[in-house]
Amino acid sequence: MQIVSSNAAMQRLAKKWQRAGALIGLVPTMGFLHEGHLSLVREARKRAGKRGKVVVSIYVNPTQFAPTEDFSKYPRDLKRDLKLLRVEGVDTVFVPDDKEMYPDRRDVPARFSTYVTEEKLSQTMEGASRPAHFRGVTTVVAKLFNIVLPDVAVFGQKDFQQAAIIKRMVRDLNFPVRIIVAPTAREPDGLAMSSRNKYLEGDLRRQATVLWRAMRATKVAVKKIKLFSAAVLKRDVKKWIETEPDARLDYVEFFDPETLVPITEVSPGTHMALAVFVGKTRLIDNGRL
Amino acid sequence: MQIVSSNAAMQRLAKKWQRAGALIGLVPTMGFLHEGHLSLVREARKRAGKRGKVVVSIYVNPTQFAPTEDFSKYPRDLKRDLKLLRVEGVDTVFVPDDKEMYPDRRDVPARFSTYVTEEKLSQTMEGASRPAHFRGVTTVVAKLFNIVLPDVAVFGQKDFQQAAIIKRMVRDLNFPVRIIVAPTAREPDGLAMSSRNKYLEGDLRRQATVLWRAMRATKVAVKKIKLFSAAVLKRDVKKWIETEPDARLDYVEFFDPETLVPITEVSPGTHMALAVFVGKTRLIDNGRL
Repeated sequence: MQIVSSNAAMQRLAKKWQRAGALIGLVPTMGFLHEGHLSLVREARKRAGKRGKVVVSIYVNPTQFAPTEDFSKYPRDLKRDLKLLRVEGVDTVFVPDDKEMYPDRRDVPARFSTYVTEEKLSQTMEGASRPAHFRGVTTVVAKLFNIVLPDVAVFGQKDFQQAAIIKRMVRDLNFPVRIIVAPTAREPDGLAMSSRNKYLEGDLRRQATVLWRAMRATKVAVKKIKLFSAAVLKRDVKKWIETEPDARLDYVEFFDPETLVPITEVSPGTHMALAVFVGKTRLIDNGRL
Repeated sequence: MQIVSSNAAMQRLAKKWQRAGALIGLVPTMGFLHEGHLSLVREARKRAGKRGKVVVSIYVNPTQFAPTEDFSKYPRDLKRDLKLLRVEGVDTVFVPDDKEMYPDRRDVPARFSTYVTEEKLSQTMEGASRPAHFRGVTTVVAKLFNIVLPDVAVFGQKDFQQAAIIKRMVRDLNFPVRIIVAPTAREPDGLAMSSRNKYLEGDLRRQATVLWRAMRATKVAVKKIKLFSAAVLKRDVKKWIETEPDARLDYVEFFDPETLVPITEVSPGTHMALAVFVGKTRLIDNGRL
């Protein structure tokens, strides 16, 4: 397994693979890997084939964090990550640093000034709660696509809105990349796997399952009654969440899974997403009803 | 010479060339070709090599025109363009239509919503006179890069600021493309070649040489005096332009050719750019002093 940290070296390697006719599969991550990431890596291997190349990028991208968010304390453990990826038979781990990704030299011509922005799907939910977040995501993913030159890139369904926006970006800007969205990996008690779960100490870890419990309860209710007012369901979800002493609902939304347009009359097949603060940790989850 | 109008077909062709190890050279144009474009095509051939592939795209991109501008009357003559390109030995002409480039289907998920924006170099000169122009340019060029997958792309120096912004976009977003900027082609009397010169009827064609004359006079003055106040030079250029009855200065700027940062004390090596309305036609030109 090769570890590459320079953009130029990674791009050269990818071009060499292209000429050799090898399919390239990319899994972009922020590291601190868990079983969810590893399931994406396996999906990438399946798509690239045995003769293809699987690249995992590890980069905690500063431009998708607001100044008030957890960029500096976001968990990192490169040594452990590399060990896990070696076991998965990954070909190359791309680990750029900030100077490679956002050149900001002291000499005159520099400074990073080009961004990729998706202007519709990114307005609601995570985009409303975290302004500029998706601009950071689309920009860094465009960069990674241009550096790693993947034929296939795999994203997790846990970040449902992110995956929808990436798909839109690929369609609008014609990136020659196929986007695969792989299912959310969950702990045995239903909690969606996330690097941020590490923040959940003591009883907060138990309380965090309230996202899953609220989703399941909503699904049961919608299945029984078929057509449900979103406003009523939102009120019920808020109540569910607030049964836990340290949980606070940030948002819950019901929407069309393609357009992300909010839906007022919820029925089976509608998609649901929510964000909840558990203590100081912000968790998200989503699923089809 | 192959004429391709679908994004998917063009991308498939480019991928086939890539796998065969052929270098791809792209010249993006809005058609109505003149000698300036053809010099870019020759440069692309030189860079791609005899075994490489030269692609010329012809597309009048609506998103880089403001509603008040000349999008609908911009001159078009595809038949003549194809004849000229055949003579140059171009491999493929890519002629997409608006539906290919900006999908806007009636069914729900559609609508184009992703843009590439350069936020620094695009604030002055053409960017100040034509808001949203460069957003249209960077977006369509990113699309063309992803569809044609060029190793080299050739732009004209006549659109100096555009070339600087494209270079910045390529650096910031890591496009695997080398940008070449080729010299401005001129008519015998100094007028920079432009498809818009077609608009210049009667005496306006003669008056239009005032851009070239004003640049030459400025160059002579700066050469003689070495250090010149930009404010004084700007006043002089305005006077020069206004010696022609139908000419009106839009802007003249003196700046660093790398950063496009305006310069107040002009010396040999400073770059100069100007935009002038001649009748209703807006012309631009630039050069090193």
